[in-house]
This record gives sequence, C-alpha cells and structure tokens, in this order.
Amino acid sequence: MASGWFYLSCLVLGSLGSMCILFTVYWMQYWRGGFAWNGSIYMFNWHPVLMVAGMVVFYGGASLVYRLPQSWVGPKLPWKLLHAALHLMAFVLTVVGLVAVFTFHNHGRIANLYTLHSWLGITTVFLFACQWFLGFAVFLLPWASMWLRSLLKPIHVFFGAAILSLSIASVISGINEKLFFSLKNSNRSYSSLPSEAVFANSTGMLVVVFGLLVLYILLTSSWKRPEPGILTDRQPLLHDGE
Amino acid sequence: MASGWFYLSCLVLGSLGSMCILFTVYWMQYWRGGFAWNGSIYMFNWHPVLMVAGMVVFYGGASLVYRLPQSWVGPKLPWKLLHAALHLMAFVLTVVGLVAVFTFHNHGRIANLYTLHSWLGITTVFLFACQWFLGFAVFLLPWASMWLRSLLKPIHVFFGAAILSLSIASVISGINEKLFFSLKNSNRSYSSLPSEAVFANSTGMLVVVFGLLVLYILLTSSWKRPEPGILTDRQPLLHDGE
Repeated sequence: MASGWFYLSCLVLGSLGSMCILFTVYWMQYWRGGFAWNGSIYMFNWHPVLMVAGMVVFYGGASLVYRLPQSWVGPKLPWKLLHAALHLMAFVLTVVGLVAVFTFHNHGRIANLYTLHSWLGITTVFLFACQWFLGFAVFLLPWASMWLRSLLKPIHVFFGAAILSLSIASVISGINEKLFFSLKNSNRSYSSLPSEAVFANSTGMLVVVFGLLVLYILLTSSWKRPEPGILTDRQPLLHDGE
Repeated sequence: MASGWFYLSCLVLGSLGSMCILFTVYWMQYWRGGFAWNGSIYMFNWHPVLMVAGMVVFYGGASLVYRLPQSWVGPKLPWKLLHAALHLMAFVLTVVGLVAVFTFHNHGRIANLYTLHSWLGITTVFLFACQWFLGFAVFLLPWASMWLRSLLKPIHVFFGAAILSLSIASVISGINEKLFFSLKNSNRSYSSLPSEAVFANSTGMLVVVFGLLVLYILLTSSWKRPEPGILTDRQPLLHDGE
C-alpha cells in the first residue's frame, strides 16, 4: 500500500519535474529568443533552464534514491553509487548553468554577484559542492568509521533537504528578477501581467510544488529505508528471519 | 547534554531572530525614510518588517514549542494552547503586514499581486491560515478522534516546516525586488552594490540562516517530544517506571 502511493508520487513527480524544465525552456525559447553559447543574452537563457534542471529537478530526483523500496533490502553500495552519480549529474548541469550567466555578464561588462538572488544562489551551490564532497569522502570511501558515518548522517540528510529549499528560494527570486529585467522596456510591463509574466510566474509556482513534493517524500518516515539498528531491535518482536 | 545544546541553539536563535527584525527595521528607517500609516511609501515600509517578524521570526519560534524539554512530560494541552497562541500572534502580524502593502498599492493605484514574490507570498499566507484553522479544529477542539489526529499529525508537521521554507523564499524574492525598485532611480544602482544593497542582502542571508536553524531544531529527532507509543514500546527495554 505504502509502495503503491510511493510509485504514484514518483509518477506525479516525474511529470511535474519534466514540466518544470519544459516550461522554463519554452519561456526562454518563445519569449526570450532561444539559446546560443556566445556570451549574448541568448547564452544567459541557458542559466534558468540549467539551474531548474540541475539544482531542483535532477537534485530532487537524486535525493529520493533511498526511498525506492528496492533500495531497502540488500547491499547499500550500488544505491550509494547511484545517489552520488545522479547528484554529480545535477552538479554538472548546475556548473554549466553558472558558466552561462558569468560568461554573459563578463561579455556584456555586467557586474557579477550583486543581487540577493545571486548571493543566495552561489551559497546554495557552494553548500551543494561541500555536501557532495563530504558525502563522497565519508559515505562512499571506505576509511570512515561507522561512528563518524552515523554522526554525519542526520546532518547530511538535513542539508540535503535544506539545499533543495534554498534552491527553490533562489529559483523564485531569479524568475522574479528576470521578469523585472525583461519586461522593463517592454510595451506591456510586469505589473500589467502580460502572458509571459503569467507563464513564468506559473513556472515558478510549479517549481515550488515539485520541491514540496520531493521534500514530502524525503521526510515522510514510512518511505525511509529501515535502519539496520531498528530492524535488529524489532526483529524478535515480529518473527524470526524477517 | 542534548538539552544543553538545545538551549544554546535557542539563545543563538533568539539573537538571530531579533537581528532579522532589527536589521529590517534599520533598513527601512535609515535608507527608506521610516514608517507611517497613511497609504504612502512609508506605510509600505511596515510590510517587510511585519512579514519578517510574523512569517519568519514569530512563526519559527512558535513552531519550536514542542522542542522545549519542559513540554515533553505532563499534560500536552497547555503547550498546544501556547503553540496555537504564538502562531496566532504571528498570523496577526502577517495580516497587518499584508494590509500595509495592499493599502499602499491601492492608495498609489499600483497593481496588486502581479509579481512571483506576491503569488508565492499570498499562497504561503493562505497555507498558514489553513494550517492554523485545521490545527485548531483537529488538535485543540475535543471532537476529533485519536485516529484522525495521528493521521493529520505528520501532515501538520510537514506543512509547518514547508510554510517556513516558503516564507523564506518569499522574503528573499521580496528583498531582491524591493532593492530593484528602490535603487532604480538612485545615483548608485543595485549593481554597484551601495551600502543599502549590502545591508539588505545581508539581512536576507540572516533570514536564511535563522530559518535553517529553526528547521534543523524542528527536524532533529533527539529534540522531539517522545511519542507515547514509542515510550510504551521501549519502556520494558530500558527500565521499569521510566
């Protein structure tokens, strides 16, 4: 029953995540002139797409690896590798997304890192990098003791969810700011809610819904991989050999 | 030991929360001309202060009532009443903060609810209202069965944390947007990072740190009120009469 709900949530999540990416692509393609890799504003257009794809959709999906019922039994290592590999993909998309905006700024002599959006965004990416490297060093490499791993695990889990929350805040402030920039010299201002503004605002709200669903699945205890300690404690209370 | 850390965290939290409010007041007073209640831009200045105070600082503090070790033993009702009362205070501050911005907009014939900041903000306040009324109806009024309460509790806990995350996203996008508005016609633009921008960006980052600390205390299991069921299960494993 619990796993039925889990798979239904995954289906909803996959659809929502795809919609988040496709909507951002459509916004950039239809209203902002599409994509290029030449330092122009069309290079900037990769930034929202890659940040939504990397820091929200891929990151969210990668976080949920241990919620798959298949991962609850048997050796944990393959699932750890999958968790790390998917997050690495998310991180690569994120870094390319940052290259897009920094190159656009430098090419057009626009200042970097002055908005609160950029301060929060770069902090979030820095936390993501720390989280990935610390997770790799402690949970994947064989040197760390069980004591260290169990000490760091709740912190890793907390920052996993926290980074996703900060990504959502970064995306929301980024979409908001982009609409102010784009519609400033337009014949229909942001305040008159042209179709682009309604579409991009809705994309932002979709990112929020996606993020909340990931956090819900992540934090709902019935879908968590049972801890070996808890299994061992409870085994005699249930039945032998479970 | 755990409660020592908890009180240290509370001290840090109290200081951070006060700083969030004081910094927002200082920003509005020193750079934006102070406060009034007359439909002018000085009336708007109440909006950031009251939203940070209501939706982040008071809300965050009110969320942590059940993490106080004193609340873990004895009857739960007084703590429920305190939890509801503090959240009601947070909600009142929030509503007055909304009145400030809507009155300013209506007075100056500025459109309401067109930015993504406002879409997310109003959704967050709506969720907060639903959360409060549902919490009051199910957990405080005596009619609801234990079955219904235990069904709704994880949802109530999840949305408690989710609403705080959405509040932070709303505050970040709000500060970002306010700086674009305020510094648009200034002799020092946002991109040249004048002292106001550095101060307001830092205030935003402080709100993020405060919010993350609340979420950390909220989600860290060793500070949670032990569930009666768990106590009963574990009692024989520890010692009689614990």
